[in-house]
Amino acid sequence: MIDVIMTGELLKTVTRAIVALVSEARIHFLEKGLHSRAVDPANVAMVIVDIPKDSFEVYNIDEEKTIGVDMDRIFDISKSISTKDLVELIVEDESTLKVKFGSVEYKVALIDPSAIRKEPRIPELELPAKIVMDAGEFKKAIAAADKISDQVIFRSDKEGFRIEAKGDVDSIVFHMTETELIEFNGGEARSMFSVDYLKEFCKVAGSGDLLTIHLGTNYPVRLVFELVGGRAKVEYILAPRIESE
Amino acid sequence: MIDVIMTGELLKTVTRAIVALVSEARIHFLEKGLHSRAVDPANVAMVIVDIPKDSFEVYNIDEEKTIGVDMDRIFDISKSISTKDLVELIVEDESTLKVKFGSVEYKVALIDPSAIRKEPRIPELELPAKIVMDAGEFKKAIAAADKISDQVIFRSDKEGFRIEAKGDVDSIVFHMTETELIEFNGGEARSMFSVDYLKEFCKVAGSGDLLTIHLGTNYPVRLVFELVGGRAKVEYILAPRIESE
Amino acid sequence: MIDVIMTGELLKTVTRAIVALVSEARIHFLEKGLHSRAVDPANVAMVIVDIPKDSFEVYNIDEEKTIGVDMDRIFDISKSISTKDLVELIVEDESTLKVKFGSVEYKVALIDPSAIRKEPRIPELELPAKIVMDAGEFKKAIAAADKISDQVIFRSDKEGFRIEAKGDVDSIVFHMTETELIEFNGGEARSMFSVDYLKEFCKVAGSGDLLTIHLGTNYPVRLVFELVGGRAKVEYILAPRIESE
Repeated sequence: MIDVIMTGELLKTVTRAIVALVSEARIHFLEKGLHSRAVDPANVAMVIVDIPKDSFEVYNIDEEKTIGVDMDRIFDISKSISTKDLVELIVEDESTLKVKFGSVEYKVALIDPSAIRKEPRIPELELPAKIVMDAGEFKKAIAAADKISDQVIFRSDKEGFRIEAKGDVDSIVFHMTETELIEFNGGEARSMFSVDYLKEFCKVAGSGDLLTIHLGTNYPVRLVFELVGGRAKVEYILAPRIESE
Repeated sequence: MIDVIMTGELLKTVTRAIVALVSEARIHFLEKGLHSRAVDPANVAMVIVDIPKDSFEVYNIDEEKTIGVDMDRIFDISKSISTKDLVELIVEDESTLKVKFGSVEYKVALIDPSAIRKEPRIPELELPAKIVMDAGEFKKAIAAADKISDQVIFRSDKEGFRIEAKGDVDSIVFHMTETELIEFNGGEARSMFSVDYLKEFCKVAGSGDLLTIHLGTNYPVRLVFELVGGRAKVEYILAPRIESE
Repeated sequence: MIDVIMTGELLKTVTRAIVALVSEARIHFLEKGLHSRAVDPANVAMVIVDIPKDSFEVYNIDEEKTIGVDMDRIFDISKSISTKDLVELIVEDESTLKVKFGSVEYKVALIDPSAIRKEPRIPELELPAKIVMDAGEFKKAIAAADKISDQVIFRSDKEGFRIEAKGDVDSIVFHMTETELIEFNGGEARSMFSVDYLKEFCKVAGSGDLLTIHLGTNYPVRLVFELVGGRAKVEYILAPRIESE
């Protein structure tokens, strides 16, 4: 038996974060809170969502439980929910998830979790560079890069953090120095990534949200977003592209 | 000779209400105010519009008069009018309608009313259930139902008023009890309707508008919207769908 | 060497004004400020842009200089710039334009100005009627006319200034008298123009911007927009259409 209450904003954020990569997901209701993770069908990116128990208005579970959810349907219905609405999620038996908001009760059949693609192990990555910045600034940089190219280079060194994109006749560099960043360890790293994935990740975030980037060289990047005033943590791990230079 | 002045908001509302069902309509300028009604080409729905004389800023007619109007054209031009603009409608001869707003005078040829599809008789319906609610809430319920199915069931009984939609793997119930409704007689009734029509009807209304629903069992429903602060009454009568269960 | 700083709003306005007609343009950095002009490929319209030196935050040029710019690319990237951002344009050598805003540096290859279509001579036009009005009103009139026809007649006489459009069953007249206009010389003139061009021109302007119209009879019209609080002057010259009556 699961019975939790959260804000519409929180539900919309979690749902948006996951549908960026997959349409079905396993959601774990653990003692410490909600957890979910999944890799996209192309095996290029992973999403890891954590909502601590305290971020919910009410968090009642009689035991730790895993459900399989059609995220596309929840995402669709979440568009009818206002950010300030309170939303109640109820699972009374194995077969149905109830989503209650305002005068509406939405019921959707659960999916057998074992029928959903096996969950990824979270890789242990040693990433030398750590950059903490405003997610809104990052989003703007990716939007600008997207006008130039479908891939970007993230580069970190003593002089700061750079996002670079190169077109046939033009190029763009986003550059923040240590003093402009919220936190920066000056680590040396450089990898290339797909803009399409990054754009998709940015959709959950806005100005005021905190983004921590862990970067290596020709290595996956970890993008950790702290969302909804810190009440939700959404992490994306994205595989690098091979530079053909 | 007709010479009336109304707000842009009122004109836009009337026009929106009618184009939901037909592209040409007869408009009656009566002693008591403007009246129009029409059925859609599929004979599934009827719209009845009434704007009392007092809702106009100026209402001058030398005798009761009926004109035939290309509503699509008026709807199109009404998009150039702001809600707060004052709009003057003038008919000096049988052939032309003038719409004046700001520095603009728009003229459109009238249609011979006898060339427009015969107006429906308003049916006498005995509908046991009466529900009064905020039109904005209704609109949200229909928008949510639309994500699940193309038909909804309206159901009324002692426990309140319900709007239900059923998809293959999910379902939604909007439920308001007597205390949540503005007025409710607890009458027993249940009918199924097309979501597409209901969505179209809702476009005239918003939060704060009053909606009265008269419901029967496998019978047409009457949806009476009080719009523009009560200055316009728009009623839709919608035929039920047959449940194939 | 060019090094100038302007607001995002100003850059966006200049760029929007030029891409209305051409995708590549010569930009002159003169002692007195920025100047550019171009005719569209169909030879129907000309744009003339002038930004006085004082409209820039910083205006440093070591000598007068002409660059060839891919305006479509600048327009594209300008969508990533906020109106309130400060934007720095830098040309250090013949080959590259740098556009710096926030933490972003955008570089685009310059085009050899001699490879861009020869600039037009600005025609000397004797236009009897002069009309000064709010650009927002003009924009609304063109938007309304656009719903009726693809051409409009501009007409000026003692009774004021008119914009007229005629459809098959409807027509629209926008009419402002001398007292409603900001300035008006009552000159007699009448010409017909393409709505598509006028709509395109209006995109740079909004309510509060000043528009001066110089009109003749079956003659090109001059539309002079004062934009961004008077800091930019954008003039369009549009050839008339021949009336086939």
